[in-house]
Amino acid sequence: MKREKKPSTAVVPCPVVLLSVKGPERPNIITLSWVANVCSKSPTVVVGIRPERHSHAMVKEAGEFVLNIPSTSQFEASVFAGTRSGKDHDKFAECNLTPSKATKVDAPMIEECPISIECRTKEIHSLGAHDLFVAEVLAVHIDDSLLDEHGRFDAAKASLFTYLPLSAEYWALGEQME
Amino acid sequence: MKREKKPSTAVVPCPVVLLSVKGPERPNIITLSWVANVCSKSPTVVVGIRPERHSHAMVKEAGEFVLNIPSTSQFEASVFAGTRSGKDHDKFAECNLTPSKATKVDAPMIEECPISIECRTKEIHSLGAHDLFVAEVLAVHIDDSLLDEHGRFDAAKASLFTYLPLSAEYWALGEQME
Repeated sequence: MKREKKPSTAVVPCPVVLLSVKGPERPNIITLSWVANVCSKSPTVVVGIRPERHSHAMVKEAGEFVLNIPSTSQFEASVFAGTRSGKDHDKFAECNLTPSKATKVDAPMIEECPISIECRTKEIHSLGAHDLFVAEVLAVHIDDSLLDEHGRFDAAKASLFTYLPLSAEYWALGEQME
Repeated sequence: MKREKKPSTAVVPCPVVLLSVKGPERPNIITLSWVANVCSKSPTVVVGIRPERHSHAMVKEAGEFVLNIPSTSQFEASVFAGTRSGKDHDKFAECNLTPSKATKVDAPMIEECPISIECRTKEIHSLGAHDLFVAEVLAVHIDDSLLDEHGRFDAAKASLFTYLPLSAEYWALGEQME
């Protein structure tokens, strides 16, 4: 038996990404959960960002960004980067994260995150509280330690986590379902 | 040290939803992972669907659908509904799922899924292999057994799972991160 609740963002579980982008003074990192793969060819992602956030103008201006997928080792950095403004904080420095050069876009990748996805914005749609950035994936970088002998992603080594907006909680992944 | 791979849909982990929609002959269910919350006000979701899929025309025609979040109890049904066509299968019947009446849209909710999200399409954008449906959330229904005494969602009772497109695997959620 279900109870009806008011409309909300109730899709769960959600990815957690650290979006990195270049800026006029220094690069910035913003933690986001309103993110998805939406098209397989050309590989396309969407990202929802509030116009009030410091990174919104940087992402819009740059037209390029990197989505870095954190492991549980970057959990504290993910929370920090999602709750502080890049206006007041050098998040790379304060989170002890290392910028590394991307190959297709002019935005830093985050060395410590096991997966980095280079993206270029194709469209921006205003939805209300958030703008929707539709972006093409130009390259994917995966940490060598997560690839098996055939170069395939080994999820068991990745230690991923997820966000549940319904309870504002982060949960680690458990066991593979068979 | 990371290795560069070709562009792909690499955002992980992803939600798994059973989209239910009315149809000319019978309602249908399609399992999708190209789904996200993208705007908090008005609450908005996006869904990527390939035009070749049987449900694409049904979702486009109806203009309304329900996103049902499965628990691990609906894992087998989720895989079935994601790999068979509604043209050849009555998925409600074959998956032993029960349609129940939604309150805001003309599409069945799936009784067995712990969360059902009623949605109305606002925009459709062609992205290539997939079309992007942008839809407003009109109501959220949550199973009573997952709500605590204050009516708040208790994730520990939900037994959610997630999809990892990089390895085409489903993983159950483990422990809450603190």
